[in-house]
Amino acid sequence: MTAPTSRTSVRLAARPVGYPDDSTWDVVTEDVPAPGDGQVVVAVDHLSIDPAMRGWLNDVRSYVPPVGLGEVMRALGTGTVVASRHPHWTPGDTVSGMVGVTEVAVVDGDALQPTDLDVAPAPTWLGALGMTGMTAYFGLLDVGRAQAGDTVVVSAAAGAVGSVVGQLAKARGCRVVGIAGGPEKCTWLREIGFDEAIDRHDGPLLKQLRAAAPEGIDVYFDNVGGETLDAALATLRRGARVVLCGAISGYNEETLPPGPRRYLSLLVFRATMAGFVVFDYEDRYPEAVAEIGALVRGGRLVARETVATGGVAAFGQTLLDLYAGRSTGKLVLAV
Amino acid sequence: MTAPTSRTSVRLAARPVGYPDDSTWDVVTEDVPAPGDGQVVVAVDHLSIDPAMRGWLNDVRSYVPPVGLGEVMRALGTGTVVASRHPHWTPGDTVSGMVGVTEVAVVDGDALQPTDLDVAPAPTWLGALGMTGMTAYFGLLDVGRAQAGDTVVVSAAAGAVGSVVGQLAKARGCRVVGIAGGPEKCTWLREIGFDEAIDRHDGPLLKQLRAAAPEGIDVYFDNVGGETLDAALATLRRGARVVLCGAISGYNEETLPPGPRRYLSLLVFRATMAGFVVFDYEDRYPEAVAEIGALVRGGRLVARETVATGGVAAFGQTLLDLYAGRSTGKLVLAV
Repeated sequence: MTAPTSRTSVRLAARPVGYPDDSTWDVVTEDVPAPGDGQVVVAVDHLSIDPAMRGWLNDVRSYVPPVGLGEVMRALGTGTVVASRHPHWTPGDTVSGMVGVTEVAVVDGDALQPTDLDVAPAPTWLGALGMTGMTAYFGLLDVGRAQAGDTVVVSAAAGAVGSVVGQLAKARGCRVVGIAGGPEKCTWLREIGFDEAIDRHDGPLLKQLRAAAPEGIDVYFDNVGGETLDAALATLRRGARVVLCGAISGYNEETLPPGPRRYLSLLVFRATMAGFVVFDYEDRYPEAVAEIGALVRGGRLVARETVATGGVAAFGQTLLDLYAGRSTGKLVLAV
Repeated sequence: MTAPTSRTSVRLAARPVGYPDDSTWDVVTEDVPAPGDGQVVVAVDHLSIDPAMRGWLNDVRSYVPPVGLGEVMRALGTGTVVASRHPHWTPGDTVSGMVGVTEVAVVDGDALQPTDLDVAPAPTWLGALGMTGMTAYFGLLDVGRAQAGDTVVVSAAAGAVGSVVGQLAKARGCRVVGIAGGPEKCTWLREIGFDEAIDRHDGPLLKQLRAAAPEGIDVYFDNVGGETLDAALATLRRGARVVLCGAISGYNEETLPPGPRRYLSLLVFRATMAGFVVFDYEDRYPEAVAEIGALVRGGRLVARETVATGGVAAFGQTLLDLYAGRSTGKLVLAV
């Protein structure tokens, strides 16, 4: 494999207000930079499309610095090493890492992880076996302290993180309720073993939750915020744990959306609401990969991906499709 | 001491919408009921006036059942046993417990605790050595896990719970910032050892908090909710603990006030927000009484009470004075 000399990349042209649009991105064809010492050239094959991306565009202090104007958009991806100035990597190695929205990435070799395509195809290494799966695993088990017998409720349950959370919880002996948008997603959740699937378009959420979790929620894994979080807070069981993974419902709002009005339920139910950032668990990723990998290979965890096409030029639209809830499972973009 | 045969009591006449008013209460003169087996007759001398009282008037599921229409208003108080049909208590014993807003209470002897007036006067047994002090102790140390060197911020800091939280945190080696309303309260906080006192009427709270806690907050003990909670959430340090003790700013609102818009700070800062109910720690009250009692006797913790007069007939107005922030330290009503 010869290292390509030119590439198409997506760079941040302007910080969006509300939803990103065409003016947010510059799609440019450019020379591939020469790799420095310790760097690796990766031919990217798939990019991870993540809810957190919208937050990376805001010029505010957060758990990672914002993407700078003119910089290649930050993204996780998978690919194949085509040139290496790092002792650990040689051409032909398959890898994942923070490659950015580009066809050919030049990155520090230390920041790459190996992928094993015999275990699962590349998109799964961005989903159940990637950051998505790590987020589900540590959020559910470490932050949420889910135990066999617990009632676990997860929102955006047909999404990348949610679908792994639910299946992991089932594998650990929990009773699992998923909240998703639309009958097809709910049907799929039941197929992959969720005990109950609530269609959030199908009548008042609070009433549906109380019916699905009549004894209350032990662990609520929140991916959406907004009214869904409030309904869950009102349905907690004593000693419940609320895991804050994200709040996709508000990411594209121009002002800070309302907070959870029912947060004092935490007091009534002696409950805890905790946030986490998956990067903090990096040392323990192998433990999660081992457990999720075994479940995937054993057919006990369905790793589903929606693979969008169109290459890096389709990145902007694919991200909007994510926020519109058009995908099931992990959304990746084929490069 | 002879057991009195008549008493004045305050009974719940109507559930209030918003602030309670005269129509909320019936002030009645009535016969003292005869004590049943295991019951004790207590001549009440002081009543505890608590922010939580407003919540007890709402007909909703909470950590305790609501006060029923026509019932004597629930209240903690201190007094002297004047008659007893319980083996543990004899006339002359001084006690505290849930006596209700009445001059003469007939209560189960099992639900009373002894007070020692040689250690501190009766009002202190409703304050620093009562439920107030227990709330401060277990909230700060158990829920908040405050450690020496932590920056602890407490709201309503000149109030009953807040003033004990701050002084306990100082005694444990923390740096303590109090938020209170008005220069007199702030001056008092500095007198009793707070490192910083923020007057919430004195300019934007977020800016003041950032100046007072430049390295961020480790433990935020929240008594007020609303904008104060949001400002604290924006000022957390990584791994911070937010202790939800109450939200006095919203207790008299007719609709649920807005929730904390900045709750996703919990995610960015890997922080935890937890509620608690002090009654859960009943088995460990002696541990707290021992530590707080020693600090009080050693002059290292100032137990301040505001003693309102007017007897039980003044209960309604005294409760409104509490919500108006007119008291410093623990507010009690002399009967």
